[in-house]
Amino acid sequence: MSKRRKRAVAPVMKSRAESVPRGARVDLADMSPDPVSYLGQVAYFELAVFESLTRAISSAPGLAAKEGLTAAAGEVLAKHHGVVAELRALKVDPATAMQPFAPAIDRFEKLSHGRDWHEMLLGVYLTAGFLDDFFIRLLAGLPTEMGKRLEILLEPDRSANVIVAELRAGIEADETLSSRLALWGRRLVGDTQLVARSALLMSGNRANDEERIEPVFTDLIAAHTRRMDGLGLTA
Amino acid sequence: MSKRRKRAVAPVMKSRAESVPRGARVDLADMSPDPVSYLGQVAYFELAVFESLTRAISSAPGLAAKEGLTAAAGEVLAKHHGVVAELRALKVDPATAMQPFAPAIDRFEKLSHGRDWHEMLLGVYLTAGFLDDFFIRLLAGLPTEMGKRLEILLEPDRSANVIVAELRAGIEADETLSSRLALWGRRLVGDTQLVARSALLMSGNRANDEERIEPVFTDLIAAHTRRMDGLGLTA
Repeated sequence: MSKRRKRAVAPVMKSRAESVPRGARVDLADMSPDPVSYLGQVAYFELAVFESLTRAISSAPGLAAKEGLTAAAGEVLAKHHGVVAELRALKVDPATAMQPFAPAIDRFEKLSHGRDWHEMLLGVYLTAGFLDDFFIRLLAGLPTEMGKRLEILLEPDRSANVIVAELRAGIEADETLSSRLALWGRRLVGDTQLVARSALLMSGNRANDEERIEPVFTDLIAAHTRRMDGLGLTA
Repeated sequence: MSKRRKRAVAPVMKSRAESVPRGARVDLADMSPDPVSYLGQVAYFELAVFESLTRAISSAPGLAAKEGLTAAAGEVLAKHHGVVAELRALKVDPATAMQPFAPAIDRFEKLSHGRDWHEMLLGVYLTAGFLDDFFIRLLAGLPTEMGKRLEILLEPDRSANVIVAELRAGIEADETLSSRLALWGRRLVGDTQLVARSALLMSGNRANDEERIEPVFTDLIAAHTRRMDGLGLTA
């Protein structure tokens, strides 16, 4: 059951890391930041996602949901630790590398908390899915071997099936939740795009490079729409 | 440096799981609960320790401390998932097995939160160390192979070096912290023993079995004293 659900939610993303050759998708290779900035930003982002998930674990309405979400938390923590290991391999202190990105990501995480448990879950699912995907588009500009390791590590939605199942159960149990979550999802995608754009600007890219950015964002929004569809929500 | 620290804090515990033959220590073999109750209780306890650690991560005073504690959180989460895997192997729903133990452990976790970040860390370190050690004493009553796996899994203090380093740094920076933490540690060991004793009673043991319980608690308190000593605190 859970396998089928996972495929239904993000079939393209699931198979991509496994079988589609690297570079077959639109990416932002020449807009990539230097490796240390890249790793610092991604490491802090995964740490922030982990913290959001732990809040969802602490406030879970029942023990089964709580237990289920610990698996997702473990996966996100593994992403964080994998990126931190890359920084350590470069002899860079992880905290120093993450620090410049903390204020903006903290602000964003606060924005995407939501007003209740289901909004919190949807926030984690949509923003982490979108931004993991975005960060993968920047990998092509990094050293090849590091890029390959990170592409496998950062695969979006890997552990999202628990979150998706909880959201679906919530939507089934409460008719009003569906329209509220649809609204929330539409608002989140706007804020999340701003974060991605400002990450590009922080890397010294020009804001008016719309022609190169546009196709990537079209892809990322399509993936967002598939996530919403998978939950029966109108994007 | 961190290796030396670790050894200084808990030399006996560190070496025990590796080299001392099983059964050489005082244990509570014939007071063990049935496997499902045992696993449910330990799984919920590790989940509660994980949640306490995530609160310490969220309220960490700096990014280096926050990052350091994520390693400890990962280790505790691995303990929880390892115990949950044992339950799944027995075809038992983890949430159902954990549920009976949730109220008492939640109450205990609230008691051991502490008033600030350092008390919170000391609370996690001392109570998790004591109770991991206690749960290991009950392993001898479980099926042999399961017991062996759990003995390795539950090794106390495995990832405590980060916590110990943070506590030491705090004590060095603030003279008043030392006496406050010493008091807090003495209070915690009392409450923690009560939890361990009530775990024995829940397993259907008689409260007046002091002769058999006493030597085990003497051992556990000796390990607690070593943890306090390692921090320069009077137990």
